[in-house]
Amino acid sequence: MPRPKPLSGFPELLPADRIVEQHLQDRLRATFELHGFGSVETRAVEQLDRLAKGGEIDKEVYVLRRLHAAEGEDSGLGLHFDLTVPFARYVVENAGHLSFPFRRYQIQPAWRGERPQVGRYRQFTQADIDIVGSGVLPFHHDIEVMAVMVEALAALPLPAMSFQFNNRKLIQGFYRGLGLPDVIAAIRTIDKLDKLPAEIVAEQLVANAGATEEQAQTCLKLAEIRVADTSFVDRVRELGVTDELLDEGLAELLAVVEGCQSAAQGDVGAGTTVEANLRIARGLDYYTGTVVEIFMAGYEHLKSVGGGGRYDALAADGKTTYPGVGVSFGVSRTLVPLLADGRLAASRQVPSAVLVAVAEEATRAESVAIAQRLRARGIPVEVAPEAAKWGKQIKAADRRGIPYVWFPGEDGASDEVKDIRTGEQVTADADTWTPPADDLRPQVVAPQP
Amino acid sequence: MPRPKPLSGFPELLPADRIVEQHLQDRLRATFELHGFGSVETRAVEQLDRLAKGGEIDKEVYVLRRLHAAEGEDSGLGLHFDLTVPFARYVVENAGHLSFPFRRYQIQPAWRGERPQVGRYRQFTQADIDIVGSGVLPFHHDIEVMAVMVEALAALPLPAMSFQFNNRKLIQGFYRGLGLPDVIAAIRTIDKLDKLPAEIVAEQLVANAGATEEQAQTCLKLAEIRVADTSFVDRVRELGVTDELLDEGLAELLAVVEGCQSAAQGDVGAGTTVEANLRIARGLDYYTGTVVEIFMAGYEHLKSVGGGGRYDALAADGKTTYPGVGVSFGVSRTLVPLLADGRLAASRQVPSAVLVAVAEEATRAESVAIAQRLRARGIPVEVAPEAAKWGKQIKAADRRGIPYVWFPGEDGASDEVKDIRTGEQVTADADTWTPPADDLRPQVVAPQP
Repeated sequence: MPRPKPLSGFPELLPADRIVEQHLQDRLRATFELHGFGSVETRAVEQLDRLAKGGEIDKEVYVLRRLHAAEGEDSGLGLHFDLTVPFARYVVENAGHLSFPFRRYQIQPAWRGERPQVGRYRQFTQADIDIVGSGVLPFHHDIEVMAVMVEALAALPLPAMSFQFNNRKLIQGFYRGLGLPDVIAAIRTIDKLDKLPAEIVAEQLVANAGATEEQAQTCLKLAEIRVADTSFVDRVRELGVTDELLDEGLAELLAVVEGCQSAAQGDVGAGTTVEANLRIARGLDYYTGTVVEIFMAGYEHLKSVGGGGRYDALAADGKTTYPGVGVSFGVSRTLVPLLADGRLAASRQVPSAVLVAVAEEATRAESVAIAQRLRARGIPVEVAPEAAKWGKQIKAADRRGIPYVWFPGEDGASDEVKDIRTGEQVTADADTWTPPADDLRPQVVAPQP
Repeated sequence: MPRPKPLSGFPELLPADRIVEQHLQDRLRATFELHGFGSVETRAVEQLDRLAKGGEIDKEVYVLRRLHAAEGEDSGLGLHFDLTVPFARYVVENAGHLSFPFRRYQIQPAWRGERPQVGRYRQFTQADIDIVGSGVLPFHHDIEVMAVMVEALAALPLPAMSFQFNNRKLIQGFYRGLGLPDVIAAIRTIDKLDKLPAEIVAEQLVANAGATEEQAQTCLKLAEIRVADTSFVDRVRELGVTDELLDEGLAELLAVVEGCQSAAQGDVGAGTTVEANLRIARGLDYYTGTVVEIFMAGYEHLKSVGGGGRYDALAADGKTTYPGVGVSFGVSRTLVPLLADGRLAASRQVPSAVLVAVAEEATRAESVAIAQRLRARGIPVEVAPEAAKWGKQIKAADRRGIPYVWFPGEDGASDEVKDIRTGEQVTADADTWTPPADDLRPQVVAPQP
């Protein structure tokens, strides 16, 4: 076959880069499980009507058809485009077997048939955490789930993450208290502040949301509030709007920001920031309280690398409503650009810490036996593929980044092990020798730009 | 939305069962990495012409189409139906960046649009290991890759596995030495011994492979040889056929069986068996030496739960040929029936070892702080969702199988922790208390049938 070319929008990783991805996923999993989140994996496909929103599918869904299907025969299935839709379906389908509040994490690919661009792929891996209740879900879970993601991302060797929070009740209460006639249209318009200048947005608030000039300016003032402390409460109050829902939203946002700031405090290195950013709305999704978007320092052009919030009705089955709160982190969206920029790398491209050399093919079994003694104590080892000259076997290890080469002792002599980075070679016993902890597994390093 | 029904052929696991699957996958990964196999993940899709064999796609491939695609517009992409085709493509695509011999493991789903039946799914997870060379791949890798899978499966809490080996060179050399005119037709016919009685197969050998009556009977005698030791060598010799390729195949099969038997020796519990079964042919796939099928005791009706072998041309790019040897294990095919039969279970349905009780909502922060102190030492913990009566909080832990409930000390009293299985309650310090090692993570138990 001719040499295949990479497929645009479907990034695949070389072995060393895959080690970085595994490291990230393992660390995410470890943090999630420490907080009692269990793993769920859903099938890759959903029935097409489940991928629809209000009867229409606005996402670029990939539909499945069997190659040998009869003309016009349709599977009725599409690949999921996120992990929220399949999780909501899973909760309703299995509600009788789950203990609520149910907390799960899910690290899986999703697919969108859109045109690939920077940070946007046709297949991409996400890491989601959600807590879902049956009927009710106390607000303190909003703080919890967001603090867990702060802790999880702060534990990764990534550029500083900025968590930017807002609250839908705050926005809606403020607009209502201000007397705006069309609150939904106002949210939709304010959401354009990323793309349009403020004066155009103000004009549209007047034209589309029925705002007066003055109301439009007050909306803009609210959207300008962005602070890394709790002073947003006073700044909102200074705008002079009063409303019960606004009060509730302010109190919730305050609690989430304080809770996440305390979760970020353990993070001395990466410098995670937690802010209230009153322009964040998360588009038209059905959020009903807390909303968050996550940005990565130096990679703001990717837009958010994660986001989420509170849904009062994540799912419903006619009898029961399942409120949920969750947050999603874009593993591919973060990782692929960082790898391309050399901002993340693995210390070697294989798991092996040791390559056991082979003196001649006739004694390969001795080398295999040494390797098994090392493995029995948890040391990843491979045996040299051919009984070449020592120099060539050392080169084979070096090419893979394997730090140690083990030489079986000949004619009753002791075995020796060489650190091929320093050249130091010492006698060693396969039942007791252990590499330094940092050499046991590939390390992930984060070179500074 | 109405309560959705499970989709036939797309098994999904409840949280406790997913813990079992994670345990299996973690153990597989650990063994593979101990032997220097690194992880590769390929995209879910391949170009349709790559999914074809000799110009034709005989598998039930799922083809992708964008929902909003124009009439007649085709993505030209299909979901992969195994992990070998994508791996072969990955090797050729990235050959310049890989170190050969290249060893990788791959644990991922694959899809087939076939009619679901026992042990056959439309989406199923496989665990594959392969070693691939550039130009050449010494035979000792056959022994290595098979022994690694023996070790990997023996480390899992599964019913006894039976590895049944054969060798294509042995079969082809034997048929050639016997003087059969159509060796390929003979292999295809002998492969039907599972489904047809021996006398019918003998008739077909005469009719389709040009064998004489006597040759047909000798073929059947070869296919009847199945032993758990190395006596197959003598038994083949007794049939009086001589051929160079046969000798080579016998020597290879002997080496693989001996190597795997020694790998299985460490496995005292599960009782892995390693056999030479001279009827195994692996259908018409392009194997050129070692072949293997894996069966699970008590689940022989699933047919093989794994298999593989040696390809002298796993892939090629015009200039270079890449020989490979590998073996695939059906994770879903094994796990889903065992879970359904209650042969595998997790000791609890959540990662949490401890639930920290909450005395009243006003003191939730204290419980959260205790939880963080426990987590700082690697203990998975969740905090009670509501400040209910102690009995109700204990029940919430019990429902999830969480073994310990932690009671924050009130008014300066010491904290206490209760093992809710025994009722034993002791004073404890969140900075020092540790559960027994067996309680730290969910355990996977294998109840006897």
